[in-house]
Amino acid sequence: MPHVLMIGGSDAGISAALRIRELTPETDVTVMLADDFPNFSICGLPFYLSGEVADWRNLAHRTQDDILREGIQLMTNHRAVAIAPDQQQVTAISSTGQQVQVPYDKLIISTGATSRIPRIAGLDLPGVYFLRWMGDSFRVHDHLTTQNPKSAVIIGGGYIGLEMADALTLRGLSVTLVEHSPTVLKTVHSSFGERVAQELQNHGVTVATGISVEGIAAYQGQLRVTGSPNFVETADLVLVAVGAVPAAELAQAAGVALGTQGAIQVNRRMETNVPHIYAAGDCVETWHRLLQKCVYLPLGTTAHKQGRVAGENAVGGDRHFEGTLGTQVVKVFDLAIARTGLREAEAVEAGYAALTADFETWDHKVYYPGAQPLHIRVTGDRHTGQLLGAQILGHYQGEVAKRIDIFATALFHNMTVAQLSDLDLSYTPPLSSPWDPVQMAAQAWVRQSTRTTAGEKAGAIAR
Amino acid sequence: MPHVLMIGGSDAGISAALRIRELTPETDVTVMLADDFPNFSICGLPFYLSGEVADWRNLAHRTQDDILREGIQLMTNHRAVAIAPDQQQVTAISSTGQQVQVPYDKLIISTGATSRIPRIAGLDLPGVYFLRWMGDSFRVHDHLTTQNPKSAVIIGGGYIGLEMADALTLRGLSVTLVEHSPTVLKTVHSSFGERVAQELQNHGVTVATGISVEGIAAYQGQLRVTGSPNFVETADLVLVAVGAVPAAELAQAAGVALGTQGAIQVNRRMETNVPHIYAAGDCVETWHRLLQKCVYLPLGTTAHKQGRVAGENAVGGDRHFEGTLGTQVVKVFDLAIARTGLREAEAVEAGYAALTADFETWDHKVYYPGAQPLHIRVTGDRHTGQLLGAQILGHYQGEVAKRIDIFATALFHNMTVAQLSDLDLSYTPPLSSPWDPVQMAAQAWVRQSTRTTAGEKAGAIAR
Repeated sequence: MPHVLMIGGSDAGISAALRIRELTPETDVTVMLADDFPNFSICGLPFYLSGEVADWRNLAHRTQDDILREGIQLMTNHRAVAIAPDQQQVTAISSTGQQVQVPYDKLIISTGATSRIPRIAGLDLPGVYFLRWMGDSFRVHDHLTTQNPKSAVIIGGGYIGLEMADALTLRGLSVTLVEHSPTVLKTVHSSFGERVAQELQNHGVTVATGISVEGIAAYQGQLRVTGSPNFVETADLVLVAVGAVPAAELAQAAGVALGTQGAIQVNRRMETNVPHIYAAGDCVETWHRLLQKCVYLPLGTTAHKQGRVAGENAVGGDRHFEGTLGTQVVKVFDLAIARTGLREAEAVEAGYAALTADFETWDHKVYYPGAQPLHIRVTGDRHTGQLLGAQILGHYQGEVAKRIDIFATALFHNMTVAQLSDLDLSYTPPLSSPWDPVQMAAQAWVRQSTRTTAGEKAGAIAR
Repeated sequence: MPHVLMIGGSDAGISAALRIRELTPETDVTVMLADDFPNFSICGLPFYLSGEVADWRNLAHRTQDDILREGIQLMTNHRAVAIAPDQQQVTAISSTGQQVQVPYDKLIISTGATSRIPRIAGLDLPGVYFLRWMGDSFRVHDHLTTQNPKSAVIIGGGYIGLEMADALTLRGLSVTLVEHSPTVLKTVHSSFGERVAQELQNHGVTVATGISVEGIAAYQGQLRVTGSPNFVETADLVLVAVGAVPAAELAQAAGVALGTQGAIQVNRRMETNVPHIYAAGDCVETWHRLLQKCVYLPLGTTAHKQGRVAGENAVGGDRHFEGTLGTQVVKVFDLAIARTGLREAEAVEAGYAALTADFETWDHKVYYPGAQPLHIRVTGDRHTGQLLGAQILGHYQGEVAKRIDIFATALFHNMTVAQLSDLDLSYTPPLSSPWDPVQMAAQAWVRQSTRTTAGEKAGAIAR
């Protein structure tokens, strides 16, 4: 019986293993992982640390028993230290120091990512934390429960930084969020970033943007974070959340080629350059469906898809990863902020004649109680009319997340913005409008595009 | 300047008028309507009668001033009584009895639908109501506010009947709902209908299904509704909501051909058989994108789209109506029930090898507080794998409505069920899972399909 080995037991590795067992129950499947937490939802860590998830065990997508019941063998607490492609063998060291050799017919590298370490002094001080894996979260949780901190500085205003600002505020800490860029959540338009900063401030978070953090130092039993221009803040706990880098050293040492931003290079079958070795998840570069090139964009949704494709191909399938659109959503206090496709600046950089409509409406008919404002940005190409991307900001109960998915599904099929009005979408006054807000925003884009084109023509005549 | 006339001032007529003014501001546009309520949201009537919408004026999608400001002329309180296609002229009678002739270059018939009148004795008794237009709702509202009824019987368990059961219960009435079919909401699978009946009962509504109502009679100051087998219920108010029929008599008298179920026949440009006459909305038959034929399926969403297409073509455009998928959602107390595409029985009737997966999961990661169960049915073709339809039932805050829209957008593009797993959909633990429930349900369908096919092959070998 063939033996497929995964290195890494998070989203990509487990998805690959499940898919293999589903397709070919006769295949031996082993998932090797460095810690004791296979298939944990690391996207859920902020909600564990907020106290909303009382027991960390609930963060498991599946329990170890669930996984074993699928016929998947688990090698927990085994750190892979070398891959020998010629021998088709992986060397690992167990937590008790024992070295083992594990042969494979096919190998799927799903080692994930690690926290990006910024160039800041004092990162090794007690009370300074990163947040990526279960071990990280236990350390933060331990600090929160045993040392009863009253205040925190969070360095980084991306998804994890924002969720942790929400989480620690909910837990009763006084939180300061520091971001290097002019606005937080720089993956969306700056006007959305400003609205998110406002939401943070409304809930008592101090937000400092445009700050270059320079160092962390111990100061009177606390930690003092300094930055320029003119930033000094003292707190009991510091969380550093400035992004992720692919965990690709093991692969690279075995001759696996790296691509974009040091991530493992893969084709759309999730094959590396080395025979019998596949890779998937946060450790690999990701095919972007609109840009038609690889980017580094580590997301749980993508890791699941890539793992499933790698698993299928490892047992003789021929599945292609259909690409990312960069679809994402985050909840920050009462707001949900979602995006898919290209922002205007990204679209311009990719050579499109990008035009964006900025549209505000309500999540449902305003006469029905509880209507919440929705803010929608639609980006399309002025010349071809092609939809390029969209962003939505609104109350988290305003179906923001699944509305961005309508745009994402439209993008997947290369629809024009105008064609969105042809979609037969659902309506009842408590939940939408006869034209869904997605379609109203698309119509606003078409109007704006027509005016712009007419203006250009008039301008051309005048010249 | 050309003059375009609409007969009917609800969704289709106003959408056509707005589109014309948007495209060709030089066109004269007149909307003639029989009452004084242009562009009212008749889907909102239940929420006015429940008391949730305090002022009926708020039901207007746009005020008369808004409409006039778009340069649209309104002829309110004018009932069209004849169309003379050769003279391109419409005869109307005003509420004061005056007859007027209105010439047109292009005519758009958007006369909507009327309540279906069942064969039941006693429909003319005081206290028996239909609900379709603003006038109907004023009569019911008047009864509710001046006569303080304590109980109601609703005949019909479709969208309006269910919404009114919710509305009148909210208002404090004791409600009995009577339905002819074995389950309520027969536009979805019977298991969903049973779940909806349970929801009604949980909120105090008496539900009687499989009942053929025979008559309504005055009885000791109330109304007594009788039916078979063995149904007798007495109440202060009776509401009859057993469907809609196209208002097509005026068109027919002018030589306009009728099609499916007596609705006006139109092509996909929304042209009738008579030159210069278009038609749109609840009075016309509707192109079904999956069935590739016309059906009668009057919906506000469709009326808006058809009106927009008719308007565009009336001023020289060349737009096709892209078809309905029968996408619908209704909120009943805390539940939302949504559908798109074909139910299994419809798919079988259309010649597909229909297979349905019935899947239950949560609207978001169950470790995050407030997760609600979602029940999803996916129907696809066993031979081709083509997605044919989907239904979702869940809490109304579980993004049921916009999840059905992901299916609707996939159906629009003839995706296979398996391809749904390729969509890049949004995820954050408070709002979804790494595989959205839509994708989990699709994967369940693929597993079931594989088992069924394998079973068939094994069966074929055994034979």
